Parts: sequence; C-alpha cells; structure tokens
Amino acid sequence: MRNVTADNITDVFMQYFGPDTDPRMREIMQSLATHLHAFARDVNLTHAEWQRGIEFLEAAGRVSDETRHEFVLLSDVLGLSSLVDMLHSSAAGTSSSVLGPFHISGSPPLPFGGDMKRHYEGEVLLARGTVTDTAGNPIEGAEIDIWQTAPNGLYSSQDEEQDTFSFHGIQTTAADGRYGFTTVKPVSYTVPTDGPVGDILRATGRHPWRPSHLHYIVKAPGFRPLVTEIFPDDDPYLDEDTVFGVRGDLVMKYEPHPADAFPEGYALSGTVTEPFLLAEFDLRLVPLG
Amino acid sequence: MRNVTADNITDVFMQYFGPDTDPRMREIMQSLATHLHAFARDVNLTHAEWQRGIEFLEAAGRVSDETRHEFVLLSDVLGLSSLVDMLHSSAAGTSSSVLGPFHISGSPPLPFGGDMKRHYEGEVLLARGTVTDTAGNPIEGAEIDIWQTAPNGLYSSQDEEQDTFSFHGIQTTAADGRYGFTTVKPVSYTVPTDGPVGDILRATGRHPWRPSHLHYIVKAPGFRPLVTEIFPDDDPYLDEDTVFGVRGDLVMKYEPHPADAFPEGYALSGTVTEPFLLAEFDLRLVPLG
Repeated sequence: MRNVTADNITDVFMQYFGPDTDPRMREIMQSLATHLHAFARDVNLTHAEWQRGIEFLEAAGRVSDETRHEFVLLSDVLGLSSLVDMLHSSAAGTSSSVLGPFHISGSPPLPFGGDMKRHYEGEVLLARGTVTDTAGNPIEGAEIDIWQTAPNGLYSSQDEEQDTFSFHGIQTTAADGRYGFTTVKPVSYTVPTDGPVGDILRATGRHPWRPSHLHYIVKAPGFRPLVTEIFPDDDPYLDEDTVFGVRGDLVMKYEPHPADAFPEGYALSGTVTEPFLLAEFDLRLVPLG
Repeated sequence: MRNVTADNITDVFMQYFGPDTDPRMREIMQSLATHLHAFARDVNLTHAEWQRGIEFLEAAGRVSDETRHEFVLLSDVLGLSSLVDMLHSSAAGTSSSVLGPFHISGSPPLPFGGDMKRHYEGEVLLARGTVTDTAGNPIEGAEIDIWQTAPNGLYSSQDEEQDTFSFHGIQTTAADGRYGFTTVKPVSYTVPTDGPVGDILRATGRHPWRPSHLHYIVKAPGFRPLVTEIFPDDDPYLDEDTVFGVRGDLVMKYEPHPADAFPEGYALSGTVTEPFLLAEFDLRLVPLG
C-alpha cells in the first residue's frame, strides 16, 4: 500500500504475509510487530534514539562469539529470559531459572562423590540431594549438568587461567536418585559490564551483581528438562539479582559442619581439615506431556 | 526481589532503576520492557523460540559490518524504520521516508546539471526541482545528498564492480533553490536476502522487492533535515514496498521526452541521442523549532 501511515502500518505489515505462513510464525510476528510499533508510538521514538538502538545491537553483535553471548545477557537483564522460564515452569516441579550466557557443552563426567574444587582456595561446599518425580520417587539415570564460577567470579570460558571445564561436570544418578559432589563455595559475581549491556546497566543506575549460585541442568528420560540454579539464603544480592533469576523455592541454606563430620564416600573423604558447608537440595522433575 | 513471578517481573524491572536515571531513558526502558514482556506473555514464548530469536540476533550481528547493516534492514522490514519516520514527519513539508542501510557518508559534490549515469547502460533520467520552505520560497544553500543503485540493483557498497561513490553525489542549491542532475532510470531491486532478515521474509511468504526510487537527504540551515525517497508512479511494487517506504506525496511521474527536447545547462546537453525521462519533484523543508 502506498499510503502507509503511523496508524495503519501494523495492519499493512500483516497484509504482506503469504497465505502459507506457518500459523505460529504468523502469531509471533504479528505480536512482535504490534508491540514493537506500540513501543515506538508510546515513547514517540526519535530518529536519534532509533539510531542509538541500532548502534547498540551492532555493538552487541561485535562482542558476541562462540563463548560470549551478549544478546543472551541483554535478554537476561531485561527480564525476558526469566519471564520465558517462568511461563514454562511447572508449579509441580522445581522452578526453572535462567541458563545464562556461560553454559558450555561437553562437560566431563563427575562420578557420585566427585570433587570440582581441586586446588582452588575457599570453603568446601558439599552439595547433595535427590532427583525425584513429582510424587517424590527417586529417578535413576538422571543427568545433572553442573557449573559455576571459580572463586574469582569468572566462568572457565571467561578466564584464561582456568581449564576449559574447570567447575563443570555431569553427574548421573543411580537407582536411589542421589547426587552429591564437592566444590568451592560459590561467590556472588558481576555479569560482564565491558560490553553494551554494561552501558545499559550504568545508564539506569543498576548494579551488575548476581547472588552466588550453582547452575544445574537436569535431564531424565520421560521428564521435562529442568534448567535451574540454587541460591544460598544469606547472599546479599538475593533480592536484587540483576538477571531476575531467584525464585522462592530455589533458595537453600548452607549448614556449617566441623571437618570430622565430613561423610564417607566422597573423593575428599578423609582429607578435609577445615569446617565445611553442606547444601541439601532435592530436584523435582515434571513428566513430559 | 526473590519472588519474581511472570506477573510482577515488569514492575520488579523498574524497581531496579537508580534514582538518578535520566527520565527519558527511564521512559524508554520502561516502555520497552513492558512491551517485550507483554509480547512474551501474549504468545507464551517457548525456550526454543527464544533460542531461535537469540540465534537470529547473533546471525544478524555476524553479517553486519561498516557497510552492511542487517539490524537496520530488520527494522526496515518490520516497519519500525518507517513508523519512526512517520512519527516525526511534518505534514507541512515533504514526507520523510526510510534512510535504508546503504547510505554512505562523504559523497562527492555534484554541480547543478551534473551527471551520475556516466557509462552505465539504461534510460537517461533528468531529475530536477526546487527546494523550498513551507511557503514555497526557494532555499539557497540547501544540500541534497543523492544516492541510488546501479542498473544491476546494487548500491556501490554492495558491488565490487562499482567505484565507492558511483551513483552518489551532493548538490548544493543556488539562490533559485533549483536542483537538477542526470542519472540512469532507477530500477526496482531486492533488499539483501542472504542474511537472517532474508530468512524472515521467506518464512512469512514476503517478497524482498522495493519499488525503484531516488534517495535524498536534504539539509539547509534553519530547517529540519529531510531524509526521503521519491518513487515513479508506474512501479509494480509501489503498493507493496517491503520496507513500507512509500508515502502518497513521494510518488512522481516520469515524463518521456524526445532527445532534442533535452535542455541546456546540463553535463549531458548536446550528447543525448535517445528519448529521456524527466522527473520534476520539489522538496519542501519545515523550519526548525
């Protein structure tokens, strides 16, 4: 149409669609254009502001590569990632939370009782629990992909000092559904602020901190995959996670124990000489379908 | 807040803003987040669809560089660029239209009567008119930045066969406000379809064609800059411009004339041996403020 106006452009956009367009694609694009156009109208977006938006997207593209995902971070700090998580999180299972931009594939197996702390300085954290179905029955053969930062607050992919898979491991549950491993107590850390997303945080007076957490992706045949994180209840950033990842049921408590209470059956059994922290957290999966 | 939900996340997002945030920044980010979150809720966006969106943005980043602006093209085919134009276009002046992703800075001067066609095959187009204020008074010293594709449908930045500034020039008006130059008759062309934006067009059954046009940016001291395009009334894509750039007042008519009617005072005067086309189009600028 040659007389496109600010009022009819959303309708004209939809008129251009071909008749064979996939209905879901049509639905998504129609909603996206409707909201994008409404945003521009609501704020009376200027050319200069539009240009800044384009430059932002181009800058985000320039800093992105196989290990740095600035658009994921953008989605995270805008709350979109968390919203998508919550829209598809079932109240019957453990809440999901943001994947974040630092997950890497191919982590090595971590046997039950295995250790990820190795030579790193810091408090020993013993994390354990049971993977269950929604009725509380243990799930055998569940795979837990575990990752966290080193004590310096950096994931291995951000840090040349670390091995590729340091603080990464995949544990598979036996018939009792139990998982258990040792690691270093996770630290609060900042999301990367040296890219354009950092500019947004600064421009809006937001800090870049995330409360400390362990990342888990839990998969088991017949169940919905669970992408989640667990957080200690004493973290100062628990109520202001810059990526909106905290859910009430993902908050757990670190129990301090003396060294001689360290259990048998772990790689570190018999070697722990300082008090350690215990985090018990069960992971409840929802059946597929 | 630790109990972020799908219902309260937009409010939580705004609570994170610092008290010193620029009010316009706050307004834009609040509207952006509100509409982005509403979009995700409206379509119940899945993780897989979110992931496709992230991959789309990363792919757009990868193909973008100093001369290719895939995010501008995305904005164009979504109608956002045209909407921003229309929101700030004054009915008192010539309508604005999309800048498009192929404008380059630093075009060489094109004196009155100058020629951009050079050795290229095709019909000669003589484009001329007057730059005026809203009362119709000619404007002296108006600068018109002119660009178009070669007859192969490619802008110089897309085409290794062309010089950097082929089919680009900047003309400055004298006291009579007149501009005039010769070029080759513009062709309809397709926007680039070898990137992720091309995937969107294919997935929604849309063609990638734009009606033929000349691009103008007109600047004069004391007036609002005008970014626009003019279109011939016989182009088959006039009613379905894939970037929504056509406005009723930007449509003009090519008048065919015999070779011996070619006027004096042009670089091609006395050399034209075939019929030529004449496009008369006045450009009306709106005062600043």
